[in-house]
Amino acid sequence: MDDVRLARAYLSRVAEPPAVALGLLVENVGPVQAAELVRSRQAPTPVHDETSARASQDLAAEDLTKAADLGVRLVIPEDPEWPAWPLLSLDNGRRRGLRWAAPPLALWVRGPAQIDDAMRRAVAIVGARAATSYGERTAAEFAFELAGQSVTVVSGAAFGIDGAAHRGALAAEGPTVAVLACGVDVSYPAAHTTLLDRIARDGAVISEYPPGTAPAKYRFLVRNRLIAAMPGGTVVVEAGVRSGARNTASSAAALGKPVLAVPGPVTSEMSRGCHDLIRAGTAGIVTSVPDILEAVGVIGELAAPVTGPTRPTDDLGPQAIRVHDALSRKTPRGPEHLSHASGVPLDRVRSLLPELELTGLARQTDEGWLSMSH
Amino acid sequence: MDDVRLARAYLSRVAEPPAVALGLLVENVGPVQAAELVRSRQAPTPVHDETSARASQDLAAEDLTKAADLGVRLVIPEDPEWPAWPLLSLDNGRRRGLRWAAPPLALWVRGPAQIDDAMRRAVAIVGARAATSYGERTAAEFAFELAGQSVTVVSGAAFGIDGAAHRGALAAEGPTVAVLACGVDVSYPAAHTTLLDRIARDGAVISEYPPGTAPAKYRFLVRNRLIAAMPGGTVVVEAGVRSGARNTASSAAALGKPVLAVPGPVTSEMSRGCHDLIRAGTAGIVTSVPDILEAVGVIGELAAPVTGPTRPTDDLGPQAIRVHDALSRKTPRGPEHLSHASGVPLDRVRSLLPELELTGLARQTDEGWLSMSH
Repeated sequence: MDDVRLARAYLSRVAEPPAVALGLLVENVGPVQAAELVRSRQAPTPVHDETSARASQDLAAEDLTKAADLGVRLVIPEDPEWPAWPLLSLDNGRRRGLRWAAPPLALWVRGPAQIDDAMRRAVAIVGARAATSYGERTAAEFAFELAGQSVTVVSGAAFGIDGAAHRGALAAEGPTVAVLACGVDVSYPAAHTTLLDRIARDGAVISEYPPGTAPAKYRFLVRNRLIAAMPGGTVVVEAGVRSGARNTASSAAALGKPVLAVPGPVTSEMSRGCHDLIRAGTAGIVTSVPDILEAVGVIGELAAPVTGPTRPTDDLGPQAIRVHDALSRKTPRGPEHLSHASGVPLDRVRSLLPELELTGLARQTDEGWLSMSH
Repeated sequence: MDDVRLARAYLSRVAEPPAVALGLLVENVGPVQAAELVRSRQAPTPVHDETSARASQDLAAEDLTKAADLGVRLVIPEDPEWPAWPLLSLDNGRRRGLRWAAPPLALWVRGPAQIDDAMRRAVAIVGARAATSYGERTAAEFAFELAGQSVTVVSGAAFGIDGAAHRGALAAEGPTVAVLACGVDVSYPAAHTTLLDRIARDGAVISEYPPGTAPAKYRFLVRNRLIAAMPGGTVVVEAGVRSGARNTASSAAALGKPVLAVPGPVTSEMSRGCHDLIRAGTAGIVTSVPDILEAVGVIGELAAPVTGPTRPTDDLGPQAIRVHDALSRKTPRGPEHLSHASGVPLDRVRSLLPELELTGLARQTDEGWLSMSH
């Protein structure tokens, strides 16, 4: 175990994320010296405030050993696997004064997926815990389709939309990553123990909290910034008026990431947050996976343009349409009748009828002209 | 019967709307002389093309007599009732080169509502004929609520959304106006005969086509420009990928009127047109009547701002929230424990706990501190 990894493991337990001052100290003096300053209580006051409560507790070596036993590794910025590019949006956000956007000091990872690879083509699917069956079905279907196209589905492993998204990706045997607000060895919610195990088997369960950390309310909000920051964009499937999903959406928008929201019935409380996001312009509307791929800019998979069914009369001019409408399928009609019924001058009617015949929309009989369309 | 009314009645039957050239001629030389030029086939070629097919058929006096018998009146621009202001958007559109935006030469009206009054506070509610029950319910509820606030509900009397909108307004005993693509005495669709009668009893059924005119496909598109132009804005409740409602929406947008679309399940084909309109930016999203009133600028009835439920912890700072989250409702805890669990420095914890107690969120016992929130 090298000094750098030990230092980051120590700091990851000592400071409650997002520890802005500590992060800047680490960037300035490096993790080993920063850890030394914290441990010896010689860090500058802002860092001291972030670390004094737990500074004396150095469990780094123990944490790393225990993690290894659990199949958990600590990924640090000094590792090739570190998702530097995906996390750049946090760096930039912090630089613009968003204190909550402080990047993580390290990430605890359970599962074989390489985080940098997994986040190269990734979309967050988030939403309400108290989701409706409509929301869960939509989340699962979007995730299934995305994962089938090798796009990593990132979510928070909560009940409702999160769980449906992970399950959809797993059903497609595609990549999925859960970002937790507790240790990666903590099964929260307990009913998702099996789901978390399945995610960790081929994908990854990740957290900036050391193993054993219990979930806490504010940790969910802090965790949300990682879900918002790492993927190429965020899709909110259902969200109440107040919800964590809206927090993730605002964070993603603040970080400059595309945010999309799924519409639903106006009568559904669970779609209200989505409609609000669309109305406010925070989110674009999304109804299908091609919409998502286009918004997050996944290259080479742009949606085919959606067009309505074509009709044989599509290419007709306005007068020809009027003459055609005046035709009957059963009663043959003469040009004079058609001119009067359509208001199109008689000589125009006489020249339009052969055109309609050429395109198969009319037929001349001995008694007059018939419509040939359905 | 004065000459002007007779001239407009004649022209209204002779030309198939929208007759751009004829409209300009009428504006330039007045309706009486324009009618004379058309009747004598001395009108300029563009006008001749619009009128030659029916120029010889002068039914003006007959039409007006028959109309009077049916309780139908001809409203013309020379009448005080003419909705000049609502129709200004068509004038402007035509000036900008939108040929389809030619204003009507006259309007046949059945029902007691004065058109200019009715359109002063009016909203069009339009949508698919093959609507779902969700769409019909939404249309009816919006119309009921709008009509209850004396906003005229304008629609096209078709099956589906149109009919539901009219019915909703009638249920509120509020104003509603149907704009038809046939004569105002023609019951189309036949199954809506009673509905049309009810609309005409207190509101109005209007058309630019003379009595007896049969509906024709292209007349629906031409009629749609009046539905788009006269009210303050257009609400599309449901629309397939290709539909008349989308045509009305595009017309309204082209005329500079606010357009709103109701979201629905992404699985519903009937909401697809609405989602497309929102995605394209043609329509704003609408989920409630206050949204509509705000968009069309009905003064004095702006929606109360929608806010989520408030929580007692809303005003706490981030450290106070963390300390509060670390409290238990059952197990009393000391400041040292709380400092460690929350990562907040011990002296801050000691100062925050009395604050939490003051706001009723914590309580001190002999054994330590308890959470007081639910």
